[in-house]
Amino acid sequence: MGLQTRIADAIEALDGHGRFLHDEWHKQAGEKLRGQGRTLILEGGAVFERAGVGFSVVNGDRLPPAATQRRPELAGAPFRAMGVSLVFHPLNPYVPTVHMNVRMLSAEPEGSEPARWFGGGMDLTPYYGFDADCVHFHATCRDALAPFGDDKYPRFKKWCDEYFYNRHRSEARGIGGVFFDDFAELGGEQDFALLRAVGDGLLPAYLPIVQRRMAMPWGERERQHQLHRRGRYVEFNLVWDRGTHFGLQSGGRTESILLSMPPLARWSYQHRPAKGSPEAALVERYLVPRAWV
Amino acid sequence: MGLQTRIADAIEALDGHGRFLHDEWHKQAGEKLRGQGRTLILEGGAVFERAGVGFSVVNGDRLPPAATQRRPELAGAPFRAMGVSLVFHPLNPYVPTVHMNVRMLSAEPEGSEPARWFGGGMDLTPYYGFDADCVHFHATCRDALAPFGDDKYPRFKKWCDEYFYNRHRSEARGIGGVFFDDFAELGGEQDFALLRAVGDGLLPAYLPIVQRRMAMPWGERERQHQLHRRGRYVEFNLVWDRGTHFGLQSGGRTESILLSMPPLARWSYQHRPAKGSPEAALVERYLVPRAWV
Repeated sequence: MGLQTRIADAIEALDGHGRFLHDEWHKQAGEKLRGQGRTLILEGGAVFERAGVGFSVVNGDRLPPAATQRRPELAGAPFRAMGVSLVFHPLNPYVPTVHMNVRMLSAEPEGSEPARWFGGGMDLTPYYGFDADCVHFHATCRDALAPFGDDKYPRFKKWCDEYFYNRHRSEARGIGGVFFDDFAELGGEQDFALLRAVGDGLLPAYLPIVQRRMAMPWGERERQHQLHRRGRYVEFNLVWDRGTHFGLQSGGRTESILLSMPPLARWSYQHRPAKGSPEAALVERYLVPRAWV
Repeated sequence: MGLQTRIADAIEALDGHGRFLHDEWHKQAGEKLRGQGRTLILEGGAVFERAGVGFSVVNGDRLPPAATQRRPELAGAPFRAMGVSLVFHPLNPYVPTVHMNVRMLSAEPEGSEPARWFGGGMDLTPYYGFDADCVHFHATCRDALAPFGDDKYPRFKKWCDEYFYNRHRSEARGIGGVFFDDFAELGGEQDFALLRAVGDGLLPAYLPIVQRRMAMPWGERERQHQLHRRGRYVEFNLVWDRGTHFGLQSGGRTESILLSMPPLARWSYQHRPAKGSPEAALVERYLVPRAWV
């Protein structure tokens, strides 16, 4: 909740106009999941058209099979899941959308020690490509993970490229970042320190990019391009993202899960940017996995 | 293709301004599915903001397991699937969105007779509720199915209510209609006649409603309501609709599958219409299964 508050405060300060609504919620016993959370959401800001940061902690009686494929000995154990999740959709199409998630899952089988593992990451979805932004975002991810071993950034970068991919479009969702799941390699304290490093990395990775782009002039052309690209964002989240898709199908809290939706999105048939345009360059040069650092 | 052409001609005539683009496509051998189709799409019309009618016929070497759960003897047989699918998104929020689909699946196991079955239906998604429209739509569905037995409309109406339901919102997608799948009860000729009756029923079920509502004045309030409701339409199609979800995941033709997407859709946090408003009445009185005829 500290991380959630720090991030929301920084975003509110940068926006200068919009304010986060604070919504605390509880899910009752008797529902599939019990738990509580705090959803912070800013809509209609000067910089952010829609920005959501959610915190939740839920308890369940039995770990679902999907969560224990690699740990059959924990199947059916009581569990807790806790996390912070955010997606920021800026108004100016020159400012990229960002997504970050940090989560901990703890299985607590009766009569034995709890087992904990971690997952998360952050990734950037620009509407216009700027090499400097991609390099800055990836370098910040790399530096945040460096204290935990030189292998972490390259592994998690590749994982991110593979995960955030719209297979039905043969196109990456954005320019990637880092993604990891089922992580428990370093021992409890260090695993958690790595997770915190990712969470703490979001503002330094993203804010300088926003500040660099937020005053760029834009018009209807850029807006229409952004709305079409946001359609692809919706497609990824509802069709491919396991957290979203199974969250909605398994009785999670709909409005918190759908924080990630853009405020407005467009679809039109065979929409393709003009050859040689900056909009085409985004798809050709940026929405393909690349070594940015 | 005759049905597709008749429907598109009638829609174009009613619209008076927009024209259907005709896009013939082929999928090559070597892709997961081979086949061809013709996509007709009208965008930016006077009455229809986006209206798509697709025809496709595809061949596959092996029936996927999902298609043969009730017919294990056909597992892995070569097959053909053929169908017409449409979704019309009007501009005026007082005009409802409509969806119709008719399809035939034919399994052609070596050395035995081909087995055919049929599926489809039509359903209406209004943004403002009018009892007369709901009654007309359902009565037309009922009358179209009447020659094939009195049980068909009630069974297919219930099936439709159950299928087009946004479980994560506890809310129906629209006011229903008819839906059926795996249908082969009457013998080949009669099964196909029933399918044709559904396809031929679309224009008489829908056009009178469009004509009744298309001149109603509307403004920003109605538009914003429509855009939010279209967000729910997107959620249904990408999260729950098996044809869309598995079509995208299994290598179908993306732009044809996503004909159903609205041209523009909005999301905002905890969006709820004001108590006692016509927008609230839609959710409370219309987006719940009801006996309309």
